[in-house]
Amino acid sequence: MSLKENFARRAERMRASEIRELLKLLDQPDIISFAGGIPDPALFPTDAFAAAMSNAVSGDAGALQYSSSEGYAPLREWLAQHMTELGVPADADNIFITSGSQQALDYLGKLYLSAQDTALVTWPTYLGALGAFNAYEARFDQLNLTGNRGADDYVAGAEAAGGAVKFAYLSADFSNPTGETVDREGRLKLIEECDQMDCALIEDGAYQALRYDGEAVPPIQALEVAQKGNLEECRTIYCGSFSKTLSPGLRVGWVCARRDVIQKLVLIKQAGDLHSATLNQMAVYQVAENLFERHIPKLQKTYAARRDAMLAALARDMPAGVEWTRPEGGMFVWLTLPKGLDGKDLLAHAVEAHRVAFVPGGAFFADGSGSNTIRLSFSLPPEDVINEGVARLGAAMRDCIGRS
Amino acid sequence: MSLKENFARRAERMRASEIRELLKLLDQPDIISFAGGIPDPALFPTDAFAAAMSNAVSGDAGALQYSSSEGYAPLREWLAQHMTELGVPADADNIFITSGSQQALDYLGKLYLSAQDTALVTWPTYLGALGAFNAYEARFDQLNLTGNRGADDYVAGAEAAGGAVKFAYLSADFSNPTGETVDREGRLKLIEECDQMDCALIEDGAYQALRYDGEAVPPIQALEVAQKGNLEECRTIYCGSFSKTLSPGLRVGWVCARRDVIQKLVLIKQAGDLHSATLNQMAVYQVAENLFERHIPKLQKTYAARRDAMLAALARDMPAGVEWTRPEGGMFVWLTLPKGLDGKDLLAHAVEAHRVAFVPGGAFFADGSGSNTIRLSFSLPPEDVINEGVARLGAAMRDCIGRS
Repeated sequence: MSLKENFARRAERMRASEIRELLKLLDQPDIISFAGGIPDPALFPTDAFAAAMSNAVSGDAGALQYSSSEGYAPLREWLAQHMTELGVPADADNIFITSGSQQALDYLGKLYLSAQDTALVTWPTYLGALGAFNAYEARFDQLNLTGNRGADDYVAGAEAAGGAVKFAYLSADFSNPTGETVDREGRLKLIEECDQMDCALIEDGAYQALRYDGEAVPPIQALEVAQKGNLEECRTIYCGSFSKTLSPGLRVGWVCARRDVIQKLVLIKQAGDLHSATLNQMAVYQVAENLFERHIPKLQKTYAARRDAMLAALARDMPAGVEWTRPEGGMFVWLTLPKGLDGKDLLAHAVEAHRVAFVPGGAFFADGSGSNTIRLSFSLPPEDVINEGVARLGAAMRDCIGRS
Repeated sequence: MSLKENFARRAERMRASEIRELLKLLDQPDIISFAGGIPDPALFPTDAFAAAMSNAVSGDAGALQYSSSEGYAPLREWLAQHMTELGVPADADNIFITSGSQQALDYLGKLYLSAQDTALVTWPTYLGALGAFNAYEARFDQLNLTGNRGADDYVAGAEAAGGAVKFAYLSADFSNPTGETVDREGRLKLIEECDQMDCALIEDGAYQALRYDGEAVPPIQALEVAQKGNLEECRTIYCGSFSKTLSPGLRVGWVCARRDVIQKLVLIKQAGDLHSATLNQMAVYQVAENLFERHIPKLQKTYAARRDAMLAALARDMPAGVEWTRPEGGMFVWLTLPKGLDGKDLLAHAVEAHRVAFVPGGAFFADGSGSNTIRLSFSLPPEDVINEGVARLGAAMRDCIGRS
């Protein structure tokens, strides 16, 4: 008996991330980690969730039962109102509840991508988006927001590869991994290019609520609705998440889009996992309804202080030739190292000799470039730990620069 | 601007089920519904879940945080022990936690099926399995447990269609929709055929715990381990679920399989939804650990009485020429109507004139046959309602037979 690996062709693309495997080893108390990119659990509204869970389980006969693939109606209505406040007039039929926004990316890949179709993504982009789209045997092309390339180039490249450009994907606010924000002009240009390509535009709003300073830019979807008059005429598909605002562990996110897209996603979910956990949606609805508006400023205050500490520490401790972003929100600062300094080599040395960790940037590039970049997250460690960690990182860099 | 539908090729196969749409209309108090197939919420261990949720949210800092794609370690260990008790010696590395067993089917489709590959399924089979595999552009062939066809025929058919037989899928205990069980001999024969085809064998154990009488047959996976000595040598992939035993709304299921399959599924989940909700896994673990063994007999007692009531009522009220299964467990009885009587027509008349509902059987057949079959679920209505509902169904049938 051979038990041959008779997996689908796409399974060849599924490989364990070496970074993820490495990071598993970092769960040691003497290591300062800027790797994670996870929210500080001390900021979770724990008491509110305990009360909401208890109310729902004991008070609502449906809390433990099967429920609809679209999602829990009061939560969909709350989110329609939330999107309306963000400048996207929507109703509950425009909202689809997902098990976190990662599932939105998976299902959008499933909806749009046949093998060899092209997804346009920034270089770098969210690692989880590459993973989600990769499973559908996508081809990636570089979405260039500075205008060096345009719609015609993208379409020609996609056709040459035997597919079509199906969507552009980006996070426009404090993106993972760079922390950068696309300005209004860049957003309008992107809508225009997607109009020219007649493709979808997936806006990942995972960090949207976490702005600490600077002027808020409306979501791309809001700008498109303002242009075209009605969400039903819009190609932008907005993916939102409660993971960065209320709790990641409950796995509740949403998609806001025109109805035909929502209806297809509901069919994908019926066949995918039936529905997101009923109780979780009820609890998130209760907590969001009761305290979302006053909870966000608490997050902003804490994370802004950590970002400030990290930027100050970087200015103090980075060797010459290292550059970094100045994010107005989110959880990440993105560093470009002097040429020749490799993020993976730096990580190995930093962990071994200085007990500080981060994520090498190469994994965020669809083409495997970006070896001289790294991502630091400031969301979890308090300021004094950030100071110490950045000092260690500077020392590790100087070691590596001295060697090369 | 055209907003053309530039969806993937697979999206053409995604259609709203007309049955599902019809059943949405049935949520009216005067209709007796045998349609659902959902557990009775009065049997949910509600207090135990309320306590477990409260303990977990307040007592475990990780309850609302991101967690691992493999699943919550204590739950994996509990399930490894559970599988060992079912005759499948397993350890935690053989267990992967899913968001319900529907997600297991989706991810197994994703792992095994390239377009035109063949999934062998019974005629009829679980509707959700057809939906899950269909999304990967599978071809279906009829898994014939009575031996009219065999491995060579299946392989020849798959190759003629341009693919390969990737797996056989079945529910061997009280299957949805027929309620029937595959005996030991049938299970052994199936292992032998899958060995010949060198394909996987997906055993859907969703109803496995709900046996009311008759002699228990070991899971196919247990029979295969007994033959081959070790789970790592086995092709059977067991999909389990807490939906029918503790709560469907929490969306917690599992896969038990050899490690290389588990590792691939973990990669799919990383790219799919990161992980199943942390709190839900903690709560299910606590409740399972505390009361699973003593909870199951309560379910068995209640559902057995309802099955008995339904079988007695069918014997009393069905017109001549109607045949039905006598399930030893589960939630369903499967009826074959006299030739020429169409399940969908019967449903339309039964709802309109007699206020009783069920699911027409055609949707459970991959080839669209089975129009003279229907599925009745006995899990939700109490005995007196079952009696009244079956009487109404008999009257509806007599109307239709009289007309034809």
